[in-house]
Amino acid sequence: MTDAVLDATGTGLGERRVDPASVHIGLDIGGTKVLGVAVGADDVVLADVRMGSEPGPDKVVDIAAAAAHELADRVGAPLSALAGIGIGVPGVVDAREGVLTHAVNLGVGGDGLPLAARLSRRTGLPVAVENDVNAAAVGASRVLDLDDTDLAYLSIGTGLAAGIVLSGRLHRGARGGAGEIGHVPVDPSGPLCPCGQRGCLEAVASGSAIARAWPVRRHPERRDAGESPAAALFRGAADGDREARRVRTKIADHLAAAVQLLVLTVDVDVVVLGGGVSEVGEQLRLAVADGLSQRGRTSPFLASLDLPARITLAPTGRPTAALGAALLAPGREPV
Amino acid sequence: MTDAVLDATGTGLGERRVDPASVHIGLDIGGTKVLGVAVGADDVVLADVRMGSEPGPDKVVDIAAAAAHELADRVGAPLSALAGIGIGVPGVVDAREGVLTHAVNLGVGGDGLPLAARLSRRTGLPVAVENDVNAAAVGASRVLDLDDTDLAYLSIGTGLAAGIVLSGRLHRGARGGAGEIGHVPVDPSGPLCPCGQRGCLEAVASGSAIARAWPVRRHPERRDAGESPAAALFRGAADGDREARRVRTKIADHLAAAVQLLVLTVDVDVVVLGGGVSEVGEQLRLAVADGLSQRGRTSPFLASLDLPARITLAPTGRPTAALGAALLAPGREPV
Repeated sequence: MTDAVLDATGTGLGERRVDPASVHIGLDIGGTKVLGVAVGADDVVLADVRMGSEPGPDKVVDIAAAAAHELADRVGAPLSALAGIGIGVPGVVDAREGVLTHAVNLGVGGDGLPLAARLSRRTGLPVAVENDVNAAAVGASRVLDLDDTDLAYLSIGTGLAAGIVLSGRLHRGARGGAGEIGHVPVDPSGPLCPCGQRGCLEAVASGSAIARAWPVRRHPERRDAGESPAAALFRGAADGDREARRVRTKIADHLAAAVQLLVLTVDVDVVVLGGGVSEVGEQLRLAVADGLSQRGRTSPFLASLDLPARITLAPTGRPTAALGAALLAPGREPV
Repeated sequence: MTDAVLDATGTGLGERRVDPASVHIGLDIGGTKVLGVAVGADDVVLADVRMGSEPGPDKVVDIAAAAAHELADRVGAPLSALAGIGIGVPGVVDAREGVLTHAVNLGVGGDGLPLAARLSRRTGLPVAVENDVNAAAVGASRVLDLDDTDLAYLSIGTGLAAGIVLSGRLHRGARGGAGEIGHVPVDPSGPLCPCGQRGCLEAVASGSAIARAWPVRRHPERRDAGESPAAALFRGAADGDREARRVRTKIADHLAAAVQLLVLTVDVDVVVLGGGVSEVGEQLRLAVADGLSQRGRTSPFLASLDLPARITLAPTGRPTAALGAALLAPGREPV
C-alpha cells in the first residue's frame, strides 16, 4: 500500500494497512467517460479515477480493464490481488449473467456484450454488472447515509428511470425491470415516446424532453458556454422569462407525477433527484417541490403524504454510481 | 383437540394432535361480515367461521372477540391457550400501533380505534392489525404457492389498491402506504376523485367506477337477483351489448394501466386480480389481458414485458384475507 492510499483513507499515514483482498473496484461506464473508485472495508474510498471512453464492445472492455488496472496501481496492489469489480452501465443489463444489451451510448446492440465474463477473463477477478441507475441508487443510499431507509433514485437524464433501494438493499424486481417508470404514460395528449406509447414520463419530463421544449438554440450566446438545455431553462425562468417559467412549471409537474407514482406504489421515504438534469441543483428541487405542493392543494390525501419534504438532491461532486457499483461487486455483503 | 379439527387438517382422526400454542387466528373484518380462520403449524387451516358484523368501534371489537372464541371452540382449546390473532380491516391502519382510522364501512372515523390493544385486553392474546388488502396479498401469495415470487394483489372493489409481497414478505413501505395506487391519476379528463384529484385509477377502474358507468338500474330485472354492476356489465358485454362492450373495454384498459404501473415500478412477476369485481372471474382476466395486449400492440417495449401472462385471478371460495391475517399474527415468522 502506498502512502497516498493511506492518505485517501483519512486514517493517517502508516497508521493502517489496507488488505487488498478487502478492496473492491467500482466503475461507472458512460458513453464519453468512465469514473472509477477503489473501495476498502467499511466502504472507504481509497482511490478514484476518471478516463475518457469510446463506444464499441471491445472498447468498453478495454477501458474497463484499463481503469481497473489504474485503480489497483493507485492502491498499490496487483489487480489480481483485489476482491472483485462491480460495473454500472446504461442499457439493459442481465445482472445474473452479467450481459449488457441495447446500450446505444456504448455502441452495444441487441447481440449483447458478455461484459462480466470478458472483463473477468482479462482481470482474473469476479465481475458483476448492474444498470447504472441501480448503481447510482445504491451509491446515493450510502453517501446520504440512508441505508435503513426505503429510497428511490430518480435519474433525470437523456432518459428517465428510477433505482429502488429498500432497507438498504437494491430492489431489482422479478425480471430486473423495477424502476422503469419512464414508460408510464401520464399525458394522453403528450408526444409519442420512442417506446411506442404516448405521453410517457420519459417523453415529457426527461432531459431530452427539456431539450425539445427549450432548445439551446433559443439562446445561441450560451451554446458555446456549454450550458445544458435544463440549465438554460432554469436560468431563463429565474430571470423572469415567462415562456421559460411556463415550461419549467410543466416539466416540474411531470416530475412531481413521477415522485407521486413512486411514493404511492412503493412508499419510499425519500426520492433522490439525480441524473444530468439534477445538476441544475436547488432550483430543480424547489420546482419539483412546488409541483408536489400544487398537487396537494386540491387533494388533502396527497397533502397528507408530505411529498415535498420527501425529495432531495443527489450528492454532487462524488462518483455516486461508481461507489454503488463497487458496493454491488461480487463478494460484498448483498446490497 | 376434537376429532372434527383433526378431520379439517386432513391428517386423519387421532393421528396427530395440534398444539394450541402453535395456532394463530386470522380475521377478515368487513362492513357486513367477518371471516375467520384458525391456522396451525405449516399454515394448515384447522377451522373457519363466518359471522355477520355491524359498524361501530365497540361492535367491531365485540364481533372480533366472538369470532376468535368461536374458532378456539372449534379447535377445542381455550382461546387464551392459542398463540395470537391477526386482523385484516379496511381503512387506514397503523400496523405498528394496531390502530385503525377512517374505516367508513366499520363506522370508525378519524378518532381511531386502538383495535389491537382492545382485542388483546378482551382475549389475553397478542393482536396484530393490518390493512385488509395487505392481508389478502399475503394470503393469496400462500394459497397460490407463490411464496418465492414478487407479487401484487390488485384489489378491485369499492376502492382500488394493491398489496405488494416481495419474496414472500409483505412490503408495507416506509409509512405503511405502499400499494395506494388507486390515487395515481391516469386520465386528466376523467371524473373527480373524492381524494381531490381528477381521473385517479380508483375513480375510473374500481367497482364504484363500474357502478357509475353501468348502474344496475339499467337492468331492473337483475336488481332482485342481486347481480353486481360488474357482473351485469360483463354479462351485457358477453351478450353482445355494444355499449356494455365499450364500457368494458374502457374499464379493462384502466385496469391494464394499473397492472402496467405495478410492473414498471416494482417489477412484480404476478399481479393477482382480487376484490369484489374479481368475482366476475375469467371474463375479467381476459378483458384485462386484452387491454394489456392492446397496449403492447403499439409498444414493442411493453410487449416485451409479457404483461398479459403476468395476471391471474385471486383464489375463490377461500378466506384468503383471513388466512393472510393469520400469517401476519404476532409470533409467526415475519411475512
